[in-house]
Order: sequence, then C-alpha cells, then structure tokens
Amino acid sequence: MLTMRIRATRPTVHALQPSLIRKVANTAIGRSDIIPLWFGEPDRPTPRFIRDAAKDAIDEGQTFYQPNLGIVELRQALATYTNKLYSTELSADNIAVTPSGMTALSVALQCVVSQGDTLVIVSPVWPNLPSAAEILGARIKRVSIKAVDNQWRLDLDELFDACDNKTGAIMVNSPNNPTGWMLEDDEQRRILEFCRERNIWLIADEVYNRIVYDRLCAPSFIDKVTEEDKYLIINSFSKSWAMTGWRLGWITAPRSLLSSIEMVAEYNFSSIFAPTQIAGITALQEGEAFICASIERYRAALNALTAAFAQLPRVTFPQPRATFYAFFEVDGVSDSFAFAVDVLNKTGVGLAPGAAFGPNGEGYLRLCYAADVALLGRALDQMTPLLN
Amino acid sequence: MLTMRIRATRPTVHALQPSLIRKVANTAIGRSDIIPLWFGEPDRPTPRFIRDAAKDAIDEGQTFYQPNLGIVELRQALATYTNKLYSTELSADNIAVTPSGMTALSVALQCVVSQGDTLVIVSPVWPNLPSAAEILGARIKRVSIKAVDNQWRLDLDELFDACDNKTGAIMVNSPNNPTGWMLEDDEQRRILEFCRERNIWLIADEVYNRIVYDRLCAPSFIDKVTEEDKYLIINSFSKSWAMTGWRLGWITAPRSLLSSIEMVAEYNFSSIFAPTQIAGITALQEGEAFICASIERYRAALNALTAAFAQLPRVTFPQPRATFYAFFEVDGVSDSFAFAVDVLNKTGVGLAPGAAFGPNGEGYLRLCYAADVALLGRALDQMTPLLN
Repeated sequence: MLTMRIRATRPTVHALQPSLIRKVANTAIGRSDIIPLWFGEPDRPTPRFIRDAAKDAIDEGQTFYQPNLGIVELRQALATYTNKLYSTELSADNIAVTPSGMTALSVALQCVVSQGDTLVIVSPVWPNLPSAAEILGARIKRVSIKAVDNQWRLDLDELFDACDNKTGAIMVNSPNNPTGWMLEDDEQRRILEFCRERNIWLIADEVYNRIVYDRLCAPSFIDKVTEEDKYLIINSFSKSWAMTGWRLGWITAPRSLLSSIEMVAEYNFSSIFAPTQIAGITALQEGEAFICASIERYRAALNALTAAFAQLPRVTFPQPRATFYAFFEVDGVSDSFAFAVDVLNKTGVGLAPGAAFGPNGEGYLRLCYAADVALLGRALDQMTPLLN
Repeated sequence: MLTMRIRATRPTVHALQPSLIRKVANTAIGRSDIIPLWFGEPDRPTPRFIRDAAKDAIDEGQTFYQPNLGIVELRQALATYTNKLYSTELSADNIAVTPSGMTALSVALQCVVSQGDTLVIVSPVWPNLPSAAEILGARIKRVSIKAVDNQWRLDLDELFDACDNKTGAIMVNSPNNPTGWMLEDDEQRRILEFCRERNIWLIADEVYNRIVYDRLCAPSFIDKVTEEDKYLIINSFSKSWAMTGWRLGWITAPRSLLSSIEMVAEYNFSSIFAPTQIAGITALQEGEAFICASIERYRAALNALTAAFAQLPRVTFPQPRATFYAFFEVDGVSDSFAFAVDVLNKTGVGLAPGAAFGPNGEGYLRLCYAADVALLGRALDQMTPLLN
C-alpha cells in the first residue's frame, strides 16, 4: 500500500523548528521529581479576587460573543491604567484586547509585515518574537546586546547600521526576556526618532514592564509616540498579575490602525471570553498591591540567586534590571541544549538553554526565579556539583 | 504639520472588507428596541452545569499555561465523543484544541495554504471561511449551491470542474451557514475521492454537525477519511452547547500533521485557559440532553417561521435541513444590504444581508431562529408590511 507522508505544505511553517525549551522539557515527561524553572511563569495561581470576578461573570451568564476589539469597559480601563502609569492621554480607541500577548504579537505582525520584509530584532530574545514574523515570510536580522561589566547593553549605532532599505520594522523586547536588560528613556527616544526618519514600524514587546526592581514601571515607548507614529506596543496580563493561563493581552496602536486590527482579529479569533475580560478589569483596578508584593518576592529570590552564583567561579551572571529571569553563562559550556539536558538528568532541575533565544544566547542558561526562595535554594544545591 | 495616514501595510489585510453583517448592526448602535436576529448565536446562556465546571477549575487555581494542543483529557474526550457519534477510531493524537472554531480554521489554513494557491469553496458561505484564506494570500473560486424545488443542492461536477492544477484545497461548510444545506454521505465520499485523485487538501467546516433535524448528527467526512488523507476538519463548542462566548474549538487531522499544528498554535495563541477546556469536557460528557432539547426548540421555531413565510407570496424559503438559519429570498430585492438596513430602520428587526455570504447570496436575507417563538412571531409581525 502506498502511504503518503503528510506534512504542512506551507514552506514557512515547514521550516519552523520546535522550541528548544520544549525539547528539554519533553525529555522529562513522566518524571515527578523535577524542579521546573524553565518556563516563564509565576509559581502561584492568579490572586483570588481576580478569579472571583471571572466566576461572578460566569454566574451572570456572560457567555455570548463580544466585540472583536474587546469589551469597551476593559479597553477604557487599560487606557486609564496606562495614562496613570505613564502620564499619557490614550483613549479606548488606542487599545485592542487580544487572547494573549502571543496573539497580540501575531495580529500586530499580520497588520504590517509582508512576505520578504526584513525585521531587525534586538537579541537574545524570546523565540516567539522572531518566529511569529518568520511564519509570515519575513526575514530576521539580529542585533546583539552584550554583557559588559555585569550589565547588558545595546549599541544603538549597531542597531541603526543593521537597518537598510528592506527593513520594514525594528522589534524590541524591553524589559528583555531572557536577559533582564532594559532600555532607558533616552535610548527609546533615539530609536523612535530613527523609525520616524526611515518611516519604518516600531514593534515593542513590553510585557515585563511591571516586573522591574528600581522603579514603578519600566521605561516605555508609550509616553513617547504620537498618533502620527508607526508603532505597535504589545502587552499582557500574564506576568504582572500571574494570569499566564488566562490568555489575555492587548495592543496599543495609533487610532487609525484599529480598523485593520479589528478585521485581522475577526479572522484570527473573533472575540474573547467576557469573564476573562472582566477578570482583567479587576486586575487593572485592584491589582497594584499584588504587583508590589510579587516584586518584593522576586527581589528576594534574585538576591539569593546572586549570592549563590557569586560562590561559583564558572558562572557569570550579568544582573537583570527587570523580569524574573536569571540568564547566566557557564564557563566551558558551548552547547547549552546538551548542558540543560545534562543538568536535568543529573540534578532534576529544569533550565532553558540559552540557544533557544538566538545564536547569541549560546553558552547561557535561563532560570525563572518566580519561585519560592527555599525551592531555588534546593535547585542551586542540586546543581552546584555541575556548575562548580 | 505633515500628518501621515497610518494604515495596515500588508496588502492582503489592506484589501479586507468589513463584514456587511457588522455594517448593518453598526447602524443600530444606541437603539434599545432592536430584535437582533443577525448573528449566529443561541439566545440563551451556556447551561449551568457547564459553567459550574469552569468555576470549579478556577477555584482550584487552574490558572497556569497549558499544552499548545490542549489538555490531554479534553483531546481524549473529543476522540471518545466523536468515536461514539460516528463509529470512528480516532485517538487524542488526531485532535488539536483551539481557542475557537475561527482559530481552528486560521491555524488549519496556515498549515496548508501558500500565497498564490487557489481554494475552491462551496458558496454562499460564512464570510470568514474565504476571508481567512485570502488574508494568507490565497485566491478564492466559488462554486454555488442552488435552490431547486425548495431544497439547496450542489452539482458535484460543477465543483470538480472548478478545480485545476493551481487548486490547493476544496473548502466546504456542511451543514452550511447560511442556507442549512447539508452534504449526504455519498456526496462526501465522491468529494474525498476527488481530493485523493488530485492530491489536494479537503478543509471541512462542520461546526453545525449537531444542529440537524432528521438524525442525531450530520454526515461528516470524519468517518470516511484515513490517516493517509490530506484533510482538516474544523469544529467548535459554540453552536452545539451554546458556548459561543467561550472561544473553544478543535481540529481533527491526520496524526502526522499534529506537530505542524502544534507549532502554528505556539505562534498564534500558545495554549487555552484550563477552566474553559474543563467546561468543554463537561459539555462533551453530559451535554446530550441539552442538545436534544435545543433541537426541539429550534424545530418549533423553524416550523413557525415556515408557516409564516408561506403566507408571504414575495418570500421564497428553501427549507434548511440543519443549522438555525432561515436564508430566504424576497422577490424584488436586488440589494440585500440596503434592504436589511431598511428592515432595521422601519421595523427594528436585525437581519443579515445575503450578500455578506458571497455574490451568490445576493437577494437573500439570513435570520437566526435560535430564539423564542414568541419573539420570532413579533419580529415577523413587524416585518410583514415590508415583506408583503
């Protein structure tokens, strides 16, 4: 009998590679003794008051279709929340709600990226950011941040030199997953000015803007752009309010782009569960104390990690200024995937290999420290023989 | 001051037209006296036992990331449900859960449709089916079903003649939104055989397979395909269990395609809220009585509508064999959009214009009769002067 080998027939899909993080995690399926620090997720469930808001909406029977751009109360609440944080003057007409930060990114890219466009992206970076563009037929050019004197830094001239007349957009994720690097206001102003001069899009992933250690919120492009700029800013409820599983994100964009976003939304997901959106309103309006408490918890974990890594001469750990990731280099490791598998097999600790975040992440490992200090201590104890 | 006009820069997005249904509905914003029969949605909230399952999962703290293909218990429950209905032998490895039937369609198309492909589609049809392909750069060729002797019929030879060597897939939505037309088993076998001969994809939207009046479930391609066939079958919880707002659908596909679907899912939505998936399991396992009761309710509404339309000589109403839509022609109407706006303004009844479903829907109106018979009676009374 003749058996066809069925596969995706779209070339850009066929070319996609499965996540290296997922590949490491898959080797542990069936093991119950793992300390999983590989995924980017707070270790505690969503706060009770947010969950209760969703339950109330379910009780009320809010189970019908909703508008593609999100319910207006949530769009308004997002504008109000942002305006308070950044002294901006956004309206609900600048906001499109999406069923995850990932979908926000996918929808944003569908609006502006054409087959053959080149996107310049600051790297290492969360792998979905370049892949979501590649699936649309875009080419990716990476510009590396570099660890200098225990701090990650971007050379802006290097970023600008990487852009040519085929560049359709600059993509930047600040605060950055996996490094904890963060753009300052003056750097953002220079990037925005460059995008204006070249008439190219600025796509900013700012989902970690509240997971920051030296101020209330990270610098954002949002208080620098105008209605005339070509910008798309991605955010999500996942990290700030421990809502990873809910799948709720949003796009901030010039008002004139919203009708395009609305149509792309229609053909991608067609609205979001109302109780999830109402949970989002509650998070925005009553969630500041939770964010403060989370930051103090992550800070304690970061301090403990920093002290422990300082005792390990093979480990170089440039300090993150934001996010809940430790991205550290281990001297002698040239294959981070093989090393992560080795750590997993020998110590039971799940780490993400640096190579998952781009070629310039090779030699590094990522550890998510949104976890109890005691658990992190146990993970470090178990890993020490391999890191020493 | 120079003001740039910002717009989507991707040509396939820029070419998209807003839904004609939405355009009619938008003319009524602010009016509270409308009888809205334009959208495809049951009029009652999701049954309490399904909502309670989601609330319990929220209480348990199931707020974390989930696998991209869906939780395995739901994939298994979908296989079991389908196997019982259609005597198939599917496993969880044939099933990918998606955050809506719309997303199921978008993800399925992303796997198999390349820019420049031609898709042959049976029409009139739900507008998102062709648009989701057009956004990917596909060309659409429509083949019309025709109303003959009060029944909708597809000429299979016409369908096959429309396919040439540029055809990448046949897309068919049966039971059909908006007409209630339904393929029979022998017709499905012939279509599948043709796809095999030509080595092209079969994309079947079967979301109305439980809203059928003369049997337990509509004929499906699912009990005819094999692992060697190039097929993608789209389904959803929306219509069968009155779960439109939850955004939960699924794809049935050959096992060998699942790894591609998983990657496309990663870059489109990255998992679904666990409580929603658990609500889905409950619907599958305990929802048969609800489906039976819904069908009886829709049948009563259909009978009342049929009797009322029979009194209106200008109205031709080919009988739907499935779905909850009345797709009827009004003699003398050549602009269904203008007529729907006129009906709305003069009678307060919201109908969908037939032109929204393709050029061959022109002259028709769609009315969703998933509503109380008393309300439908009132709508008909109000419309009678315009239909008479």
